[in-house]
Amino acid sequence: MNHYDLILRNADIATVGDRYRADIGVRDGRICAIAQQLDGSAAREIDAAGRLVTPGGVDGHCHFDQPTSDGSRFADDFFTGTRSAACGGTTTVLPFAAQQKGHSIQEAVDDYHRRAEGKAVIDYAFHLIVADATKDVTQRELPALIEKGYTSFKIYMTYDDLKLADRQIIEVLAVARKHGAMTMIHAENSDCIAWLTEQLLEAGLTAPRYHSSSRPMAVEREATHRAIALAELIDTPILIVHVSGREAVEQIHWARGRGLPIHAETCPQYLFLSAEDLGIDPDDPMHGARCICSPPPRDKGNQQFIWNGLSSGLFTIFSSDHAPFNMQGSDGKRVAGDDASFDRIPNGIPGVETRLPLLMSEGVMAGRIDIHRFVELTATNPARLYGLYPKKGTIAVGGDADFVVWDVFGEGEEKIIANDMLHHAADYTPYEGMKLRAWPGVTVSRGRVVWQDGVFSAAAGSGQFQPCLRPRTPNATNPLDKWI
Amino acid sequence: MNHYDLILRNADIATVGDRYRADIGVRDGRICAIAQQLDGSAAREIDAAGRLVTPGGVDGHCHFDQPTSDGSRFADDFFTGTRSAACGGTTTVLPFAAQQKGHSIQEAVDDYHRRAEGKAVIDYAFHLIVADATKDVTQRELPALIEKGYTSFKIYMTYDDLKLADRQIIEVLAVARKHGAMTMIHAENSDCIAWLTEQLLEAGLTAPRYHSSSRPMAVEREATHRAIALAELIDTPILIVHVSGREAVEQIHWARGRGLPIHAETCPQYLFLSAEDLGIDPDDPMHGARCICSPPPRDKGNQQFIWNGLSSGLFTIFSSDHAPFNMQGSDGKRVAGDDASFDRIPNGIPGVETRLPLLMSEGVMAGRIDIHRFVELTATNPARLYGLYPKKGTIAVGGDADFVVWDVFGEGEEKIIANDMLHHAADYTPYEGMKLRAWPGVTVSRGRVVWQDGVFSAAAGSGQFQPCLRPRTPNATNPLDKWI
Amino acid sequence: MNHYDLILRNADIATVGDRYRADIGVRDGRICAIAQQLDGSAAREIDAAGRLVTPGGVDGHCHFDQPTSDGSRFADDFFTGTRSAACGGTTTVLPFAAQQKGHSIQEAVDDYHRRAEGKAVIDYAFHLIVADATKDVTQRELPALIEKGYTSFKIYMTYDDLKLADRQIIEVLAVARKHGAMTMIHAENSDCIAWLTEQLLEAGLTAPRYHSSSRPMAVEREATHRAIALAELIDTPILIVHVSGREAVEQIHWARGRGLPIHAETCPQYLFLSAEDLGIDPDDPMHGARCICSPPPRDKGNQQFIWNGLSSGLFTIFSSDHAPFNMQGSDGKRVAGDDASFDRIPNGIPGVETRLPLLMSEGVMAGRIDIHRFVELTATNPARLYGLYPKKGTIAVGGDADFVVWDVFGEGEEKIIANDMLHHAADYTPYEGMKLRAWPGVTVSRGRVVWQDGVFSAAAGSGQFQPCLRPRTPNATNPLDKWI
Amino acid sequence: MNHYDLILRNADIATVGDRYRADIGVRDGRICAIAQQLDGSAAREIDAAGRLVTPGGVDGHCHFDQPTSDGSRFADDFFTGTRSAACGGTTTVLPFAAQQKGHSIQEAVDDYHRRAEGKAVIDYAFHLIVADATKDVTQRELPALIEKGYTSFKIYMTYDDLKLADRQIIEVLAVARKHGAMTMIHAENSDCIAWLTEQLLEAGLTAPRYHSSSRPMAVEREATHRAIALAELIDTPILIVHVSGREAVEQIHWARGRGLPIHAETCPQYLFLSAEDLGIDPDDPMHGARCICSPPPRDKGNQQFIWNGLSSGLFTIFSSDHAPFNMQGSDGKRVAGDDASFDRIPNGIPGVETRLPLLMSEGVMAGRIDIHRFVELTATNPARLYGLYPKKGTIAVGGDADFVVWDVFGEGEEKIIANDMLHHAADYTPYEGMKLRAWPGVTVSRGRVVWQDGVFSAAAGSGQFQPCLRPRTPNATNPLDKWI
Repeated sequence: MNHYDLILRNADIATVGDRYRADIGVRDGRICAIAQQLDGSAAREIDAAGRLVTPGGVDGHCHFDQPTSDGSRFADDFFTGTRSAACGGTTTVLPFAAQQKGHSIQEAVDDYHRRAEGKAVIDYAFHLIVADATKDVTQRELPALIEKGYTSFKIYMTYDDLKLADRQIIEVLAVARKHGAMTMIHAENSDCIAWLTEQLLEAGLTAPRYHSSSRPMAVEREATHRAIALAELIDTPILIVHVSGREAVEQIHWARGRGLPIHAETCPQYLFLSAEDLGIDPDDPMHGARCICSPPPRDKGNQQFIWNGLSSGLFTIFSSDHAPFNMQGSDGKRVAGDDASFDRIPNGIPGVETRLPLLMSEGVMAGRIDIHRFVELTATNPARLYGLYPKKGTIAVGGDADFVVWDVFGEGEEKIIANDMLHHAADYTPYEGMKLRAWPGVTVSRGRVVWQDGVFSAAAGSGQFQPCLRPRTPNATNPLDKWI
Repeated sequence: MNHYDLILRNADIATVGDRYRADIGVRDGRICAIAQQLDGSAAREIDAAGRLVTPGGVDGHCHFDQPTSDGSRFADDFFTGTRSAACGGTTTVLPFAAQQKGHSIQEAVDDYHRRAEGKAVIDYAFHLIVADATKDVTQRELPALIEKGYTSFKIYMTYDDLKLADRQIIEVLAVARKHGAMTMIHAENSDCIAWLTEQLLEAGLTAPRYHSSSRPMAVEREATHRAIALAELIDTPILIVHVSGREAVEQIHWARGRGLPIHAETCPQYLFLSAEDLGIDPDDPMHGARCICSPPPRDKGNQQFIWNGLSSGLFTIFSSDHAPFNMQGSDGKRVAGDDASFDRIPNGIPGVETRLPLLMSEGVMAGRIDIHRFVELTATNPARLYGLYPKKGTIAVGGDADFVVWDVFGEGEEKIIANDMLHHAADYTPYEGMKLRAWPGVTVSRGRVVWQDGVFSAAAGSGQFQPCLRPRTPNATNPLDKWI
Repeated sequence: MNHYDLILRNADIATVGDRYRADIGVRDGRICAIAQQLDGSAAREIDAAGRLVTPGGVDGHCHFDQPTSDGSRFADDFFTGTRSAACGGTTTVLPFAAQQKGHSIQEAVDDYHRRAEGKAVIDYAFHLIVADATKDVTQRELPALIEKGYTSFKIYMTYDDLKLADRQIIEVLAVARKHGAMTMIHAENSDCIAWLTEQLLEAGLTAPRYHSSSRPMAVEREATHRAIALAELIDTPILIVHVSGREAVEQIHWARGRGLPIHAETCPQYLFLSAEDLGIDPDDPMHGARCICSPPPRDKGNQQFIWNGLSSGLFTIFSSDHAPFNMQGSDGKRVAGDDASFDRIPNGIPGVETRLPLLMSEGVMAGRIDIHRFVELTATNPARLYGLYPKKGTIAVGGDADFVVWDVFGEGEEKIIANDMLHHAADYTPYEGMKLRAWPGVTVSRGRVVWQDGVFSAAAGSGQFQPCLRPRTPNATNPLDKWI
Repeated sequence: MNHYDLILRNADIATVGDRYRADIGVRDGRICAIAQQLDGSAAREIDAAGRLVTPGGVDGHCHFDQPTSDGSRFADDFFTGTRSAACGGTTTVLPFAAQQKGHSIQEAVDDYHRRAEGKAVIDYAFHLIVADATKDVTQRELPALIEKGYTSFKIYMTYDDLKLADRQIIEVLAVARKHGAMTMIHAENSDCIAWLTEQLLEAGLTAPRYHSSSRPMAVEREATHRAIALAELIDTPILIVHVSGREAVEQIHWARGRGLPIHAETCPQYLFLSAEDLGIDPDDPMHGARCICSPPPRDKGNQQFIWNGLSSGLFTIFSSDHAPFNMQGSDGKRVAGDDASFDRIPNGIPGVETRLPLLMSEGVMAGRIDIHRFVELTATNPARLYGLYPKKGTIAVGGDADFVVWDVFGEGEEKIIANDMLHHAADYTPYEGMKLRAWPGVTVSRGRVVWQDGVFSAAAGSGQFQPCLRPRTPNATNPLDKWI
């Protein structure tokens, strides 16, 4: 008789391609058998009792304990950040090792490993932020780092300390093409934002809601078109991160129609927040600061275009862009007091824990997307895109035993989001008060039950670094070639 | 120890979502276990030895033994047709029960069951061709037939004996929406074709290649736009069948960008044949007749747009539109002799057996699409779209044991297509002479080995009729809801 | 010293291409000299005193005394209709000689001449409505009528007594191409409207505002695309009449971008009325009937797209589509009482007199279009398109002396539209209460002053029939070739 | 009896809006009367004898005697340049006063006046090239220069000595908006070109034809989209200069459809030259250098898109971009010998004299555009766009007497272009050997006959500087407001 470390019985399994009832047998952190009725015993058995089981979430875009240059501080370190992820059904995260201008990327990688080790409770890999595309970086460092398992780059078209000129973007894309890496691009036109910000500040328009005026849709659309053109020139795939609304969606739709390998990501804030949320609260002028992130949430009409993009296949992945800042405290969003001008408020909002439950509730349960698309957007595609598949991102024999057993709430039983039920270290959630129809009942990471019945139970440091494969190869029968 | 009817060992399994190495255990025609190493014995074991294994093909568009109104005759009956399918890796076919004007659809269904029974060697379901959308048909017959497992309709915008006016199309779409059926639409503008045909014939331009001149791209584009508009009006999904080139692709791309549930099918003839193939052979004026089908193959530039649509996700399914006519004989394409005008030559070409090998060779092996997309286009999506999923269309625990073990040929070892190696009853193949890099080595249908090592071994009548579920339901967590 | 019949002094002349201060000398109904200071005397001199002078309006789309098949009756005959036109600055009208099914077009032309003669006070030409495209009509009648000066056809894709099938449209377009005529197309999908109307009536939704629900934008868009495709097939220019909103505009924009000669018309009702105007007035359930016309006015968002099309050059002409029905009386819109269902209310609204003042006020004075574009849309382009140029449509040496001297009202001096100030025979105007910033002070038709200082002074029958040239010729240096 | 300085009898006059037969009377350099038969005598009478007469050309884009920073030298000074223009039917030119980085614009203006005075034989105005958008330039110099009649700016997105960063472009556009100037933009992505050039040179691909490879269509398209986005942000009109092909056309078409005031220019080189012309001549490796200009001529398929844009109204103006360099000599294109790499060859080709005859022959005579559109593109629109209208750009009472009497050649009588028949100082023309069907027979500039019967007869310095009005004003009835 077979012996397993863990058996999940009676699971209603959903993957990108399949939906079926079966038992899952786990040994050494991996799935070794799936059967209608699994013969054998296990150290631990969980009866899913017909509940929905999906692959553990892969969050392709989150910021933990990332050094900043402006005195702000991310609220989460690798412990609180990955704990929050795990309790929300995510089993792999990809934060960013961010190069400082004038420094090597290796320094950032080394530093970031130090920050993660001993803290992470689920598995993780690193994207590399390329902030200084020197010849040494593009010719030597990046190719070497790709070999070591850092196969995705992130570049910025805005933010003074991070942005690359077109020429530097081209150099990075050329490396990505030559060595088979994936490039993520933050697409907003820096000069437009700077000019608009100056005009607004000169006019005394400093409240949080002017953050939105300083970064209108056309500014994102232009940079999106430019990023597409540069990728077309170099003939290499890219991912446009955090697409916020219609005009950027149209550029990507147009590029796809031309056969270009342009991928796109969106995030919960573009579905559930809007420009109105940055508006003025008569009792709290800084209330809007809670929702300041870039690109800013757009008007409610744009939310529908983002939903369309999720259901139609336009978006490749759905990430949190978890970038947690406290509201209070010396490093928080209110640091400058109630008169802080919008340009001095840290950009970013927390969301790693609520990503899956929000999309399950408002996407799947509300009938906007199906369960396969949910899995694709939140787990399988990020794993593929960043070279973690087939180890991560699906439920299949041979893959890591990363999965979620869902609790689903009927009408009237919805869970109300409140910050004190979350496990991040930020002092607020922008989704406070929203109703949820589902929440992970059990999260299993490499065969370990890390979250069950409301109890988090993983040890700091039990998460492992995952070196990434290249997202594409010259062998057309390789499963990842879909993404070329 | 477990006992199985069949074990497939060491399979390199590819599905829409997954790629992994495992053993597959089959009992009672279904997959009951998948494991890294399956414990147990079986009546029959096949060692895949690491070869690629994909779900058995589901051909969503083929014509067998379909009655015609013009004296032409389809070359294949259900025996030769399904035999040909099986030898080419297809395990489920969906031919058409075609209503005759003035008759009920039930008559066509009954007649068609008689034609299939005792002949089919693999499983089959029926689409219903609605040629006379009377009130009785739309109000009574179609709803009743949907309940019985005939959940997809096909309607024509051209062909005098089949075409529906816009009003009738609307009535059919309204039934489809109300009762949850899928509607396939042949989109070409009938009046334009009739007028162009008259002009060409009056000018004495009767050779096969003028078939192409009589049905230009704009004629297909117009009807595609109209079909989309009617579906938008009724707010129900449709599938545009056999999309041939750029202009129709652009309409569908536009509709998708607006969030409309417009699905599209293409076929091998739009990838591998072109208008040139209808041209004049100095030694045989009727040679071009071999490639006459509607819409006609377009110029080679359009082929690239079809490939783009396959890789980008624009196309939902890839079917054969197998419509086999002999060249020779009293019911063949040459029936009227070498002077036959193009409008009297039966429309249609054979292709049910070559569909998968051509796409595997030129799509997957040549690096244009990945293996997951191959499975999605040829098996999973047609099964989902027509309500056969999850019984058909994938390799998963609980599903039918329908799969293909592939033989792959290296450079220089390619197989050359010749009609005498095919198992249909048509006296030619339009793909004669093309090189293939892969062919099914083994085809398994509901656990039965029907094709292995070049030997076909299924009994006539061993295929079963498969009633279809509705392709969509109001329950958003249903796997099929992706297709709404 | 020169002698003239009329001299207009100190005119601020605006044409499509020019704007300048000059005197205009008129002899025998034609302009014979334009000079900075015209030497000579005249039977009548008018001092424009620097006021704006534009070409007399050419209204390319209006209905006077047109026989109907449903018992309704147009309120205006040729006397009241042309009087209303003249008082509103229009000096040429193009109503419709409408073929009855089963009758020849010549009959309609003869009948229509009888209705016009002795009544018209300004010049007129006839479009031909082709309602029965028999072989005799397309092969014999239409070519002969083109020779006689009837060079524009109108065809309908909806209305049971008028609509042509695609095949008939093709036949008409083929005649237009062969003989050089212009074809106007009313583009709405008849079957969709019929089906929607049935659904609405069955549901008891009969109020005027459901007229709008019965003809949604997609229904117009589809027919527009189809009309474009048919014109593309035949390679001949067409004009889409009364374009109402965004989706149809987008189709035309797309066609233009492909180099197709697709012209478009819009009308005041799509700028100044909206779907809301068909809504329910608590005191008068039939109030909305005043604004029933087809296509129906759309929502206010669509008005902006129409304005964009006027300023950008998308629209070729701006016409009234004057189709006057009384509200009261046995042949009026209220004929069936307050419970009349929308489908029984005559379609059409009056507007021949308010066309120019509305566009001058809200277009030119409000800064949305410039004065050259005003002239182009209201006079020069309709004259060119329908073969009346250069006799009509401009102010140039050799052309007819048809012009308007404008009174312009400053802020606070605006004229309020009221039906009793208008000169048509309809018992209401849908524009009641709107403010105008300009109104024709003087209208001159072929040198005759027909309207001055609020006094209408032309004799019934003084208007002349104007045979039309072909809108295009094979000689590329012909001025009309712009319109090919 | 009236006395005139010049009477042109029996002219077949074509303007943007009109076409008519008349006499034109000129006094003091201006047109003072137009009549069917002009009463009076004149110092000089010319009998046009029914020949076509159009407004004198306004060339909105040409380079004469412009200082360069790289040792190259424009072949034409103001005498040879304007002489060449006059002999080709152009009566007004707008070359560029080009700021040097680190210097004021006023210096460039003063210097450029010195170069023009005493040399120009026809009228001229200056565009200002803004190469260094300092605060002093944007806040003080540009507003002051606009007041003095320099109302159009040109900015570059490429060329190291000229290009502006996005931020600087925004600053210039903001000045243009505030003070009512027009901004011309050279749209090519500088960084892309630099990177591609490096790759080509490193690979040893230095021949003239690689100039084309270094600036592909996507590079122009990207910059076009960006320019549109910046103009949209600032809400001010721009003109994209020398649009070369389909992808840029599509961006402009898209912007127009959204109601944005984006104007576009194209030039003869994009109609009559193609990438092939840069190809290798076995006898002369540097032959292709004759056609090096930026953007480069595209493939022949793109020429059709440019023609479509001319006929459809997409293009606002048609200019020469005359930028003459000799092939021979120490400052010529061959300066570095036959091994010169493409990046070292001066960019630009001559064309001020052939602009009108080429467009008249291949546009009007060949039936691609009509005569009104010819006038609009070559004279009226550039005059309007740059504030010279209504003094320049048309034939109307009150305007300058600038016109051309055309000689038209029948079939078989065509004129063959040869460099020695041209009046520029360049040692070649890229149009050598092309057939022309028309050439100016007489050119009249401000009433002076400067070219007649093959004889040039104007004195150096007889041309006058023309200060420009603003192209747009807040008064909507102003004729120029079309261009807002």
